[in-house]
Order: sequence, then structure tokens, then C-alpha cells
Amino acid sequence: MVKKPKFRIPNAKVPRRGRTLGKAPGTITYLGEREGEGTQVEKLSYDLKTMEGEEPTNYQFLKNKPANDRTEWINVIGLSDESAISEIGSLAGLNNLVLEDIVNTQQRPKLDEYEDHIFAVFKMCYLNEARKIVKEHVALVLTSQRVLVFQEVEADVFGGVRGRIEQKWGKIRQRGADYLFFALLDALVDNYLVVLELTEERLYELENTVFQKPDSDTPFHIQQLRKEINALRRWISPVRELVNRLMESDSPLIQKETRIFLRDVLDHTFEINDTLQIQREMAVSLMDMYMSNVSNRMNEVMKVLTIMASIFIPLTFIAGIYGMNFQDMPELSWEYGYETVWGVMVVTFIGLLIFFKRKGWL
Amino acid sequence: MVKKPKFRIPNAKVPRRGRTLGKAPGTITYLGEREGEGTQVEKLSYDLKTMEGEEPTNYQFLKNKPANDRTEWINVIGLSDESAISEIGSLAGLNNLVLEDIVNTQQRPKLDEYEDHIFAVFKMCYLNEARKIVKEHVALVLTSQRVLVFQEVEADVFGGVRGRIEQKWGKIRQRGADYLFFALLDALVDNYLVVLELTEERLYELENTVFQKPDSDTPFHIQQLRKEINALRRWISPVRELVNRLMESDSPLIQKETRIFLRDVLDHTFEINDTLQIQREMAVSLMDMYMSNVSNRMNEVMKVLTIMASIFIPLTFIAGIYGMNFQDMPELSWEYGYETVWGVMVVTFIGLLIFFKRKGWL
Amino acid sequence: MVKKPKFRIPNAKVPRRGRTLGKAPGTITYLGEREGEGTQVEKLSYDLKTMEGEEPTNYQFLKNKPANDRTEWINVIGLSDESAISEIGSLAGLNNLVLEDIVNTQQRPKLDEYEDHIFAVFKMCYLNEARKIVKEHVALVLTSQRVLVFQEVEADVFGGVRGRIEQKWGKIRQRGADYLFFALLDALVDNYLVVLELTEERLYELENTVFQKPDSDTPFHIQQLRKEINALRRWISPVRELVNRLMESDSPLIQKETRIFLRDVLDHTFEINDTLQIQREMAVSLMDMYMSNVSNRMNEVMKVLTIMASIFIPLTFIAGIYGMNFQDMPELSWEYGYETVWGVMVVTFIGLLIFFKRKGWL
Amino acid sequence: MVKKPKFRIPNAKVPRRGRTLGKAPGTITYLGEREGEGTQVEKLSYDLKTMEGEEPTNYQFLKNKPANDRTEWINVIGLSDESAISEIGSLAGLNNLVLEDIVNTQQRPKLDEYEDHIFAVFKMCYLNEARKIVKEHVALVLTSQRVLVFQEVEADVFGGVRGRIEQKWGKIRQRGADYLFFALLDALVDNYLVVLELTEERLYELENTVFQKPDSDTPFHIQQLRKEINALRRWISPVRELVNRLMESDSPLIQKETRIFLRDVLDHTFEINDTLQIQREMAVSLMDMYMSNVSNRMNEVMKVLTIMASIFIPLTFIAGIYGMNFQDMPELSWEYGYETVWGVMVVTFIGLLIFFKRKGWL
Amino acid sequence: MVKKPKFRIPNAKVPRRGRTLGKAPGTITYLGEREGEGTQVEKLSYDLKTMEGEEPTNYQFLKNKPANDRTEWINVIGLSDESAISEIGSLAGLNNLVLEDIVNTQQRPKLDEYEDHIFAVFKMCYLNEARKIVKEHVALVLTSQRVLVFQEVEADVFGGVRGRIEQKWGKIRQRGADYLFFALLDALVDNYLVVLELTEERLYELENTVFQKPDSDTPFHIQQLRKEINALRRWISPVRELVNRLMESDSPLIQKETRIFLRDVLDHTFEINDTLQIQREMAVSLMDMYMSNVSNRMNEVMKVLTIMASIFIPLTFIAGIYGMNFQDMPELSWEYGYETVWGVMVVTFIGLLIFFKRKGWL
Ligand SMILES: [Mg+2]
Ligand SMILES: [Mg+2]
Ligand SMILES: [Mg+2]
Ligand SMILES: [Mg+2]
Ligand SMILES: [Mg+2]
Ligand SMILES: [Mg+2]
Ligand SMILES: [Mg+2]
Ligand SMILES: [Mg+2]
Ligand SMILES: [Mg+2]
Ligand SMILES: [Mg+2]
Ligand SMILES: [Mg+2]
Ligand SMILES: [Mg+2]
Ligand SMILES: [Mg+2]
Ligand SMILES: [Mg+2]
Ligand SMILES: [Mg+2]
Ligand SMILES: [Mg+2]
Ligand SMILES: [Mg+2]
Ligand SMILES: [Mg+2]
Ligand SMILES: [Mg+2]
Ligand SMILES: [Mg+2]
Ligand SMILES: [Mg+2]
Ligand SMILES: [Mg+2]
Ligand SMILES: [Mg+2]
Ligand SMILES: [Mg+2]
Ligand SMILES: [Mg+2]
Ligand SMILES: [Mg+2]
Ligand SMILES: [Mg+2]
Ligand SMILES: [Mg+2]
Ligand SMILES: [Mg+2]
Ligand SMILES: [Mg+2]
Ligand SMILES: [Mg+2]
Repeated sequence: MVKKPKFRIPNAKVPRRGRTLGKAPGTITYLGEREGEGTQVEKLSYDLKTMEGEEPTNYQFLKNKPANDRTEWINVIGLSDESAISEIGSLAGLNNLVLEDIVNTQQRPKLDEYEDHIFAVFKMCYLNEARKIVKEHVALVLTSQRVLVFQEVEADVFGGVRGRIEQKWGKIRQRGADYLFFALLDALVDNYLVVLELTEERLYELENTVFQKPDSDTPFHIQQLRKEINALRRWISPVRELVNRLMESDSPLIQKETRIFLRDVLDHTFEINDTLQIQREMAVSLMDMYMSNVSNRMNEVMKVLTIMASIFIPLTFIAGIYGMNFQDMPELSWEYGYETVWGVMVVTFIGLLIFFKRKGWL
Repeated sequence: MVKKPKFRIPNAKVPRRGRTLGKAPGTITYLGEREGEGTQVEKLSYDLKTMEGEEPTNYQFLKNKPANDRTEWINVIGLSDESAISEIGSLAGLNNLVLEDIVNTQQRPKLDEYEDHIFAVFKMCYLNEARKIVKEHVALVLTSQRVLVFQEVEADVFGGVRGRIEQKWGKIRQRGADYLFFALLDALVDNYLVVLELTEERLYELENTVFQKPDSDTPFHIQQLRKEINALRRWISPVRELVNRLMESDSPLIQKETRIFLRDVLDHTFEINDTLQIQREMAVSLMDMYMSNVSNRMNEVMKVLTIMASIFIPLTFIAGIYGMNFQDMPELSWEYGYETVWGVMVVTFIGLLIFFKRKGWL
Repeated sequence: MVKKPKFRIPNAKVPRRGRTLGKAPGTITYLGEREGEGTQVEKLSYDLKTMEGEEPTNYQFLKNKPANDRTEWINVIGLSDESAISEIGSLAGLNNLVLEDIVNTQQRPKLDEYEDHIFAVFKMCYLNEARKIVKEHVALVLTSQRVLVFQEVEADVFGGVRGRIEQKWGKIRQRGADYLFFALLDALVDNYLVVLELTEERLYELENTVFQKPDSDTPFHIQQLRKEINALRRWISPVRELVNRLMESDSPLIQKETRIFLRDVLDHTFEINDTLQIQREMAVSLMDMYMSNVSNRMNEVMKVLTIMASIFIPLTFIAGIYGMNFQDMPELSWEYGYETVWGVMVVTFIGLLIFFKRKGWL
Repeated sequence: MVKKPKFRIPNAKVPRRGRTLGKAPGTITYLGEREGEGTQVEKLSYDLKTMEGEEPTNYQFLKNKPANDRTEWINVIGLSDESAISEIGSLAGLNNLVLEDIVNTQQRPKLDEYEDHIFAVFKMCYLNEARKIVKEHVALVLTSQRVLVFQEVEADVFGGVRGRIEQKWGKIRQRGADYLFFALLDALVDNYLVVLELTEERLYELENTVFQKPDSDTPFHIQQLRKEINALRRWISPVRELVNRLMESDSPLIQKETRIFLRDVLDHTFEINDTLQIQREMAVSLMDMYMSNVSNRMNEVMKVLTIMASIFIPLTFIAGIYGMNFQDMPELSWEYGYETVWGVMVVTFIGLLIFFKRKGWL
Repeated sequence: MVKKPKFRIPNAKVPRRGRTLGKAPGTITYLGEREGEGTQVEKLSYDLKTMEGEEPTNYQFLKNKPANDRTEWINVIGLSDESAISEIGSLAGLNNLVLEDIVNTQQRPKLDEYEDHIFAVFKMCYLNEARKIVKEHVALVLTSQRVLVFQEVEADVFGGVRGRIEQKWGKIRQRGADYLFFALLDALVDNYLVVLELTEERLYELENTVFQKPDSDTPFHIQQLRKEINALRRWISPVRELVNRLMESDSPLIQKETRIFLRDVLDHTFEINDTLQIQREMAVSLMDMYMSNVSNRMNEVMKVLTIMASIFIPLTFIAGIYGMNFQDMPELSWEYGYETVWGVMVVTFIGLLIFFKRKGWL
């Protein structure tokens, strides 16, 4: 029997848009699913020589530029506390529309340039320790000498960047906030490539399944993977366009030397889009393969039925003839009547075998 | 038996275009289905300090600009009274082509700029209390200090905007007619997102149905949802292009500060188009899934038939042999003849079971 | 048995291109199918105050501009008389390439601007009294103060425009030849919308057929409608681009005020293209629906076969056993042997019914 | 049995690219299949008054411009003699890359402008006397006052142009080499239209076959036509872009008056691309139709099987019951036992007929 | 039984992206699969008169320009030694981002212009002696007077270029490094064409298989070829865009005369993209053909079953009737009872044969 999955397919998204109806634009309405988890702020401040981390208890420092050309990385973890976000936003001089988008966890990737800040929303996609794909909303704001990062939970996608700052690896300590912004973006994009390696691996596994031991669950798994790839496409594919706009932006917040690094990120986004496109097509063709396989197996079943029925139904008919009770059936009293009937049946049997052999069904 | 739906699939549109044949361009010809319902006008006039609502009995006030920099929101409910629409239009100085489009309830979303007014047609799509999708034609005209809204019935999509004017929420009382125009547009677009959450929910429900208990009605439901999504696409997807043109327009009717808000709306229209695209593909792939399911179930049916027939037809043949009435059939008088035949049949039975087991059909 | 349509599917087009091979460009070669039907000319001349119709017997008047700022509408009915067309063309100063296209009834919609005339080919698509779709080739030439219309037969698509001139409705008597040109184009486009309402209606009818009583003719009807829609697309969809070019043309033959009316036509051409696109997709998905229906019905058939065969073949086998003629079959002489066998058969029967019930096949 | 075509599907192209590996760019490497057929040159020279044809034995005349403003048409037939081509090319001052492309019979349509010559590769597609589609490689070079045409065999596609020169038809004798170049291009494109009429005719014939008497060869024929259309698309569809570039070129080799004629050719290339697109879609949908037909016929077969088996298997079971040999079967000795069983069988038979009638299977 | 391929489908790519996570941009991380194979350098230096080859043991010569306008071709074979690559890169003045891409064997084709070098990544695709498709990563750097080529193994794709330098064939010894760069690129692209001839050949072979002797492995082979074509598309299709950018680049490293040769390469890349597109469509339609074939064969099987069962089941029923043991069955004692029954059976048999013949199933 067709096996039925026991669980319901989870709806990817709880409908929450209704909450925003009728509100003024710029109203901060948290659309995520982690209500009541509070908001924490971490501040990392560095220049070429020194580095300090702290967890500030009030946000007044956001009103002023970092001192002495230091660069600040402000991590805001937890988006459900609308008043905290509002306070941070107004101290840091962010537009209300920006704040609305920061807490809209369903916001599509976007990049808006304002006079004194650049605002971007991305989706973190990374593999957790169990090699599951995790998707999180992240908002980045680049202001003069400062990068603000808004996340729902602290993911270690940005851990490598922090490590490089601590270890003084690469150029990160020599350059300003725009390079930090780039480095965070680069970390996001590098993780996309790792995630796509996993989906590719799964596609190959499913292809093996389709060829070697397909069952009635296989289309279910193909479909789930296809939806996963489509979801990734939705989150990842707009990034190419955004990185391109960032690279070509003439905002004074981005130094000329940083643009060459953005081109490197852009390069990866092209690869990502290629890969997504190819993976989509592979998923579609897997389904075609599965269906051809189902048809072949059906053919197989029908051939067995046809051969068995076509051979034994005529033979049974012959036996039926001589099972009739007519008073006058001369064959019944022939000396070799019984043997003759066996002979006829064996000839019929062999004739049909040859017929099916010739058709290539045996 | 294949269940047949009892009702006819409703034709989405009564053919009415014939009415316009041969008429001069600019002739006001109502194409909706609510003939004879009359036309009512509501006027809401406000500035930062005061707000007044009234239902004017004549439309002469439209000839003059609102006094004292007040902003006016004119609601025209009911489009079937062609002479009333004509009078309103000529008093407000609207082009005849605009009036023709206002009463053409089948008009595609559009935006036309004239020297002293901006004219737009949109489709309201919202969920009513019963969570059904309602689609209504709405025409908006922005003139200096005034927004005219033409609808067939009063929908509460714009209720939130009215509320914000009454409650002085947000910036709406501080800004002019262009901001009101934006606020109405924003309300329309916010409702699209809510409607798309419903169609997404239905897609997930149908996906569950396809995997768990598909029946012969399922393609019917998939097809209806697919048509619904296509209809939404038809009404909603042109809006992106229109908002973009509005944002980039250099009409003096739209202040520079309002453009940043239009960009926010534009952002939503991108998300809407992404979502429509993904939902369309999901609907197509649901049908593929259903078909693979049908094939699998057919395979199942055929296997049962093949196994039953392949096992019992040969056994019946053996029984038939010894049902023949030949005078000389030595086996019939063997001491263990009957037991031997049973033995042959049991061995055949077990042999076929093993064969089917090895094929993986059991 | 699969019903076969008795008639051949008509080839849409008689191959006639061979006639043009080897001829010099600009050679007038009639490609239609109404040879020998002659050519008639009607002339309608009007200004704001007066209007005159006549059927001129020679075409010399074409050499001169209409007098006194009058506008002339010249109707040329019948294209097969190559020498008449040639004479008209050379008197009116038309390029030979234009004349070649006028009599090429297979010419795709096009718009060419020459120094002193604008030439367009369109396809009239309208519903005749029997609500059949009629497609005719029509060529329009706009010269100073004059519009020439070339048709194969007189269709009443332009009747409304003539009526408005006669009745002085709208602006047509106040404006020049460019407005007449627009009015004719508008009449053509308005008829496209009416034709598309018919194809949409047919799509809905076919959808009902697919759900309620599909038979083996249904794919035939779907395919014919799909070809009809594709043919309309071929004739109608280039019109959008042509109207756009006309609107943006800087030809002195088109006054600035007329452009706003062309924008209105353009607007309709967008709607037409949307509708064609959606109807095409609907036609494709109708075929998918039909195929899913065929599969479901096949499943139904197979289930009936499987249930009948799976129940009665084993029972027949049991009966066969006790039809054997072995001398020593103890069951045959049991007191309740016959009743016992009936019992076994009833139990088997019920067991199989329960099995099929559980599978959901009953 | 599925009939198998006896012949192998011919590979469209003998692999020869390997021959070019490692060679310097501009090396003349003949890639066609007519080795050793030699190269002949014909020269046609004309002005308004006189015309001369000759078959020059050496090519030195190519070093100089034609005298007295005469126009020369040089026909080079046969491309396999690499040294002859090389000599012609260097005398006529052609770039080596041009020569390489001239003998590359697999070269895609292209157009390259050099300082003093314009080089184009096209594919001749025409119907031979047996109405088979013939495809040949042709290269055209336009230099000052001279057109060089390189072909593998002399095809009569250009016969009409030659005729017009001889007969002084049209404008060809009044205009220069650029008009000759256009006239040859026009002849090529006119033949494409004729070829597409043939493929359209075949599509209609195949559609009739699919509806009226499809067999297992039909998909084979559909596929062959589909490949033919794709091959035409490959050869023909780039021509639109090339003609467009030619028309917009500012090369002094092309006079302004010739551009209006090129626009006429361009117009045909649009029609060709439309037609190719529609024919492709028709070919795809023919296959869909065929598959729906196969499914319907399968349904038909299954219904017959199901009806026959479902009626006679139960009846055979009933007969089997009373064929058993139990000693005590009371029905056997009933007075109307036999008649009663007949009655039961007739009732069962009629009941099943009614059942199948109700299902609509009869 | 459906044959199952014994081997696992190889995953095209070992997941290695994880290695790059958290590293600074520009970190040299080898992503290939040939760790520990070392790095060798070959240097070929030539001018019009002389040519020298050597295998330098240190790389200090890279710091200086080649002397006397000589051109140098530096071959770096083996990319796994990250420190050697790093040293070569810093001596030759390459950007760190370039070095990262050189050792990223999964890098998509790309072209980056820097102030004093042009960097490109391509994929070599060629046929080895066993006519298998080999794909290798290759990076090219053009600096003043020098071309650096980075490969994993030495492939003989560039052998022809080396030969032309040695033999002084063509223009290669007369021109500088930019012409060498072009010649290498041309060699790469010429090999693509040869590879595509092989895939086309395989498509034709598979098409023959589908028509003549398809089996259940055929979809497997179609799918593998489709993936091969998709993989080629991934590596090859971006090259068109890169060559175009190179041709239009205004870098002083590329002389004007070289651009005409790049246009020739560009021309081939167009052909390659056409061919890839057509091959993709052919692969998709092969699968459609296969499926139609499967359906036809199923139909065939079902017809045999239906004919055999429909003929013999009713006959068996008739025999069953007269096998019943009722005491009073008058037919049994008719004089010609047995012969009459035979007559009835023969008539039934012939009637059913005629029925099936009429249906066209015989
Ligand atoms: Mg909002
Ligand atoms: Mg990176
Ligand atoms: Mg890189
Ligand atoms: Mg991949
Ligand atoms: Mg594909
Ligand atoms: Mg699909
Ligand atoms: Mg596909
Ligand atoms: Mg109108
Ligand atoms: Mg909004
Ligand atoms: Mg927003
Ligand atoms: Mg979604
Ligand atoms: Mg898809
Ligand atoms: Mg012509
Ligand atoms: Mg109109
Ligand atoms: Mg309008
Ligand atoms: Mg519609
Ligand atoms: Mg669709
Ligand atoms: Mg579709
Ligand atoms: Mg070459
Ligand atoms: Mg032509
Ligand atoms: Mg081809
Ligand atoms: Mg023409
Ligand atoms: Mg056609
Ligand atoms: Mg189609
Ligand atoms: Mg297809
Ligand atoms: Mg990196
Ligand atoms: Mg080459
Ligand atoms: Mg791949
Ligand atoms: Mg070339
Ligand atoms: Mg090819
Ligand atoms: Mg195709």
C-alpha cells in the first residue's frame, strides 16, 4: 500500500502579516516567532592597536561617533523587544522604515541607502552541528565608523570575522567599518556555498535512490528537497543584485579600496545563482526519472500478468472442454485421448512461450 | 466512480466588452455588475488641527481647491450611475479617458500622469470576515490637495488610514494629499501580502492532501487554486511597475519626502512578485506530485491483480486437468493421487510467492 | 472505441509564398484567396460642417491634397486586382514596398514610417453574427489629411467610426486625419477584447467539460482552442509594440493631442497581451487536467477488474478442486462436505472484501 | 508489436572539428564533405547598359576595382580546394579569418564588418524539385563595386536575381553592389518563408495523423519534424539580428537608399522568427496530443478486458460450484435446478451489464 | 525485472567549501583533489628570432620584466602547494584575491581586470585518447610581456600553441603576450567545439536506442548525458560573456590588432552556446520519446492480455456450464449436443476475433 507520511508537512510561515494592517508606515511590529526573548547588545570596538568588547547596559553611546577613528561592531541579539529596538534606532539615527524592516523577520533581502547610513537585510543560511540547514533573518546597518548587526539569535556565522579581529589576521584591523561590513557579508555568502554543497549532495543521494530503490516515498523526498531549493533561491538569489548595487554605489561610506573586495563577493553570488539554477533543474528531472521508473515497473507487472494469464487461461479452457459431461464425447474413450490432450496443451504452452520470447517479454 | 462536481465552474467575467464597441473614446460605459446601485460621495477634510467629515449633496465644491491648505479625501462609492460620475469628473477637471477607465471595472492596473492630476487604477484584494478573497476595482486620483477614491462598494481596506487621520497617528495629519495617496496605496499593498498568506496556507493544505489522502477531486482543487493564484498575479503583479513609475515621476504633485515612503511600498511589491512566482511553481509541482501518486496507486492495484491471478490461474488449470472425464487417466486411481496433486499445487503456490517476494512486490 | 473526427483539420494557410520567389522587391503579388473579386473604392470626405460620401470611378483625386482642410477616408475593398492597387498606390505616392505588403494578406502586423506617409498592417479580428471569429488583413495608410484603408472585404468593424462621423459624436469631426487613423485603430483593438472574451468563455466551457464529462474528443477540442489562441497571439500581440512606436513617433503627421488617445489604445494592448498569456497557460493546464482525469478513470477501471478477478479466481479454484475426479477424495463423502466448502468460500469472499475495503478501493 | 524503423537516424553532422585543433587562427581548413570537387569561378559584370558573363581562368582581375563603375558578381562554386580559395582571398584582399570562415561549412550565420569589406555567412534553405529541404552554406562578401558569393554547389536560389539582371527588371541594374548584396540576401530570406510553409504543412498532416490514425511510428515522425524545425531555427533565426546590424551599419559600402530595402528584409525575418516559434510549440503540443491519445486507447483496451473478465469470471465460478463432485449436493437433484442456475447466471449477467452501463463504460 | 545499475552515481564534487569558512579574503586555500602533488614551473621565452625553454628552480625572475621585448609563457603545473603559489604570486605582483581563485579549482569562469594584469579562470574541456571528456581548471594571467598559466596537470590542449611557437607558424612569433593569451584562449575554445561534437554524437546514438531497442537502462543513460551537458553548460557558457568583455576592454595590455582575433573567438562562443542550448532540448525530448515508447509497449502488453482473456474466459464459461453435474441437463443427451457446443464456441471465437480486428487491435 502507498505509505503515507505520518506527520503534516509544516507550513513554512505562520501567517502574521495581518498584524501590520492599518498601522502607519514605520510602526515597529515584530513579525518573528520568538516573542518575549528580550534584546541584548554587545559592542566590539577596535583600532589597529587595541580591541575592547563590552555589553553596554544603556545605548546612549550610539548618539556619538566612536572616538579616535576606532571602528565599532554593535551586535543586537533578539528582535522581539520593540521598545528596545526603537530606542537603539532613534539613538543611532536610523529611519523608522529601517526599524520596521529590522523586526520584520519575513523581509526579503534588501539594500537601502540613506544619507548617513546603508541598510541591508539578508538571510543567514548555514549548517548547524547536525548538518541541518538553518535560516535566520539578519539586518546590517553601516554608519560612519560603526556596523550594527541585528539578529534573532547569535549564530556563529560571524565567529570567523570576530576571530580575525581578535587575532589581527588579514586586513580587518587595518581598515574601517566598510571593510567590516564587507567581511560580514563575505561570511554570509561563504556559508551559502557550503549550504548548497549539502543540497547538491542530497540531490545525488536522491538520484541514486531513484535509480536503485525507489519507493512511493521518493516523490515526497524529491518534493521536499525541491521546496528547500526554492526557499534558498528566494532568500539567496536577490543577494547578487544587492552586492552589485553596493559595489557600484557612490556612497562616501564605502571606500574605493573596499570595492575590489565586494567584487570578490559578487563573483561568489554569480556562482551561487548558477548552482541554484542547476539544482532546480536537477530536482525537476529527478521527478521525471522517477516517473519513468514507475512506468517501467508497471510494465514489468503487466508483463508477468499477461504471460501467466495468456498461457494458463487457454490451457484451462482445453481442460474445461473435457470436463464437460456430454454423453457422446468420442475423444474421452480414445485410447490415447488423455495423452493427446496433454500433447495439445504442451504444444500450446511452448508456442506461447516462443511468442512471448520473440516479443522480448521473457 | 470519478466524482463529478455538481456545480458549474463559474466564469470569472461576464462578457461585456461588446457594450463599448463603436463608442467614441472617452464615453463613460459602466462595465461592472452592480447596475442601479447609485453613487454616494463622502468628503473628509483635514489639516494638522481640525478634521471634518460630510456627505455633500452636490459636487460643486470640486470646482475649487480646498481652502487653507486643507487636504481633502473624496470617497465615491458606487460606479454604475454614469451621469453622476460624469458630473464629478467634469467638476474635478478629469480627462474623459480617465472617467471611462474609472467605470471600466475590468480595467487592468494602470497609472497615467496628466498635467494636473495623477490617475491610477488598482485592484483591492483583501480577506473578508469569512476569510474569503474579495477583489474589487478601485480608482485613485491625486490632484492638488485632494485625493478622489472611486470604489464599487465601501471596503474597509482604507479603514486603517481613516483611523490614523482621526487619531492623528503617524505623520498623516502633518503631510499633504500625496502622503494620503501613498497611505492608501500602502494599505492596498499590505492587504495583498495578507491575501498571499492565505493562498500559501492553502497550498500547504493541498500538499498535505496530495500526500495523505488524495482523491479524484484533488486535481480540481489544485486547478481552482492555480487559477486563483493566476488571477491574483494578473491583478497584483503590474503594481510593482506602477509604483516604480510613481516613485520616479517628476510630477510636482508628489513631494520629495514622499518618495522614500513609496520606496517602502515598492519593496513590498517585489516581495509580492517573488511570492506569486513561487506559489505558481508550487501549484504546478503539486499537480506533478498528484500524478505520481496516481501512478503509484495504479501500480499497487495492478500488483494485487497480478499476484492473485498469477497464483490462482495456474492452480485452477491443474484442478481443471483432473476434472476431465477421460476414461483412462491413470493418476485418478493412484493411491495418493489426490494428495500428490495437492502437493504439486502447494509447491506451485509457494514457488510463486517466493518469485513475487524476490521481485519486491510483496 | 476512440471516436475519430470525420473531417480533416484545415490547414490554416494555403502555401503561396512560392509565387514571390525570384521577383524584384516591390513587385505587387496578391497572396490572398479571393482572386478575381475586383477592387472598389469609397471616399468619405468631411470637415466640421459638411460630409460627403462617393464611389469615385477614377483615382486621379488621390494626386492632390484634399481641399480646404477637409479630411478624407478612402476605403479600398478587394485586393486581388494588382493593377488597380498599383494605380492607387502610385497616385497616392506610396512606396512600392508598401504596395507589396498591402496585397500580401499573410503580412505580419507592421508599422513603417516614410517621409510623407505612415503605413501599418493589422489583422482585424471580430465576431460575426454567428459569433465565429473572423480574421481579415487590413492595411492603413496615413498621409496628410487622408487615411487610406485597404481590406479584402468590407467588415463592419469600422462601422462605428463611420457612424460617429455621420452623427458628429465625440471629437472625430473636430480633428484631422491622425485622429481618424487613431479611431480606426481603436476600433480594431476594441474588437480584439471582444474576441478574447469569447475564447475565455470557451476555455471555461472546456474546463467544465474536463471536470464533468470528458470524452476522447476533449483533447481535440482543447488543441483546436489552443491553436486558435496561438493564432490570435500571432496576429494581435505585435500590435502593442506598434502602437507604442506610433505614440512615440515624432512624425509631423501625428499631432501632439492625438498621442494621449494612442496611450489609451496602448493601455488596451497591454491588457490584451496579459489576457492572451493567461489564456495560453489555461489551455496548457486544461490538457494536464484532462490527462489526470484519464489516469483517474483508468485507475477506476483497473480497480473493478482487480476486485472482481481477485475475489472470483480463488473461489473458482476451490470449486475446481472438488470438481476433480480422483477416486479417493475423502471430503467428497463427508456429511457436511458441500456445506463446509461453501463456508470456506464465504469466508474467503468476506476476507477479500475486508482487504479491499481497508485499501480504500471499495 | 512496436514497429522499429529499419534505418539508423542519420547524424546531422560528421565530426570534423578535430581537424582544426592546434592550427593557427586564419588557417584555411575545409570542414565540408565534398572534398576534391574543385573550385569554379563565374564572373558577371554589368552596368545600366551592358552585361557580360565569363568564366575567368585566373583570378588576377580581383586585384583591381571593376572599371567604369561597373558592378561585378563573382560566384565561387566549390569550397574544398583550399589553395584556390586562398588565392582568391588574397587577391581580393580578404582577411584570413574571413577565408577560414568561408570554408568552414559548419559556421553559424555571422556578419563581420572590416574596413573595406563586409563579410556574411548564411545558410541557404530551399526546396528542391522533390520538395525536400536542402541546406547549404553560403558566404557573401561585399567590397567596393563587387559581391563575391562562395557556395559548395550552384543552387538556383540566386537564379531569380540573375534573371532580373539579365531582363533589367526592377532597380537592380540601376544600383550598385550594395543593392546586389541586398537582392541576394532577399532571395535567401524569401526561400526561408517557402521552406517554413512546407514544415507547417507537415505539422498539419501530422496533426491529422495524431487525431485519425496514430500508430507507434507517429512519435518518430513528430520527433524528426521537431528536429528539422530546430535545425532550421539554428540556421535561420540568427539572420534577424544580422540584417538588423547591416541596416544600422554606418559602413560607406552601403548607400542610404539601400537601407529601406534592408528594412523590408528585416520585416520578413521577424515573420520567420514568429513562425519558427509557433511551429516549435505546435510540435511540442503534437507530442502531448499523441500521448493523450495513447492513454485513451489504453483506457479502451482496459475497459474491454474489465468488462469481459468481470462478467464471465463470476459466471464461471457459479458453473464451477455445480461441477463439484460432492455426494450430497441437494440442488443437483432439484427438479428445476439447472434452470434455476441459468436464471441466476442471467440475472448476474444483466446486473453487471447495468452496472457497467451506469459507469458509462458501455 | 528493472535492472539496477550496480555502481553509485558519483557525486561530481567533494564538498570542500567548508574549508574556506572563517578565513580572511585572499587566503590561499587549495580546493582541488590532488593534494601533495607539488608544483612545477616551466618558462618559455621567445621573440621573433630566438626561443628558449627552461625549468627555473627559483622564481625571482618574475620580479622583473622580460628583457628585450621578449615574450614569456610561464606554465605552473600543480596547484596544491599553497606556499609555492603564494611565492609565485607575490613575485609576479598578483593580488591575493587572484591567488585565492587560482587554487580554487571550483571557481566558475571569470575575468578580472587589475591595473597591471588581467586574470581569467576557465575550464579546459577536451577529449583524452580514450575519447572521454576531461575537465580541468585553468587560470591565465596576462601581465606586460608575460602570460602565466596555472593548471592542475599538464594537458596537451596548449600543445598546438607551443608547436606554432616552435615552428614559427602563423603570427604568434611576431606578436606579443596579448596574442599568446588569445592563442591559448582560442585553443581552449576550439576544444569545446570538439567536445560538443562528442555529446552530439552520443545524443544521436541514444536517439537510435530509444527508437530501436530501448530498455529500462535507457532513461539512466539519457539522464547521465543530460547531466554531462548541463555540466558543460556550467563551465562553458560563461565564456561568451568573458570573451566579449575582453574584446571590449580598454586595457593597455591588449593591442588593438588583437581584438579582431578575439572577435573570432567570440564568434565560436556564440556557436557553442547555440549548440549547448539545442543539445539540452534534444536531451529533454529524448526522455519524452522514451516515455511515449514505454506507453506504447504497455499498450501492446495490455492488448495481448485483453485479447487472450476476452476470448478464452467466455469459452471456458461455456465449457463450465456443461461440466455441471445436474441430474437433468437435457443438452447432455442431445445427439449432437457436444458438436453443438463446439459450434457455439467456434462462432464465439470468430466473433471476438472480428470484434478485435475491427478495433484495430489485431
Ligand atoms: Mg507597512
Ligand atoms: Mg567569500
Ligand atoms: Mg574569489
Ligand atoms: Mg553543482
Ligand atoms: Mg531541463
Ligand atoms: Mg515542470
Ligand atoms: Mg522538464
Ligand atoms: Mg474605448
Ligand atoms: Mg506597507
Ligand atoms: Mg519596509
Ligand atoms: Mg513561500
Ligand atoms: Mg519548478
Ligand atoms: Mg519580397
Ligand atoms: Mg479603445
Ligand atoms: Mg482607457
Ligand atoms: Mg482571465
Ligand atoms: Mg500555469
Ligand atoms: Mg503549465
Ligand atoms: Mg580556429
Ligand atoms: Mg523579400
Ligand atoms: Mg540540430
Ligand atoms: Mg515587405
Ligand atoms: Mg501558423
Ligand atoms: Mg504551447
Ligand atoms: Mg516539453
Ligand atoms: Mg573567501
Ligand atoms: Mg578558434
Ligand atoms: Mg551539474
Ligand atoms: Mg572564424
Ligand atoms: Mg548540433
Ligand atoms: Mg523542446
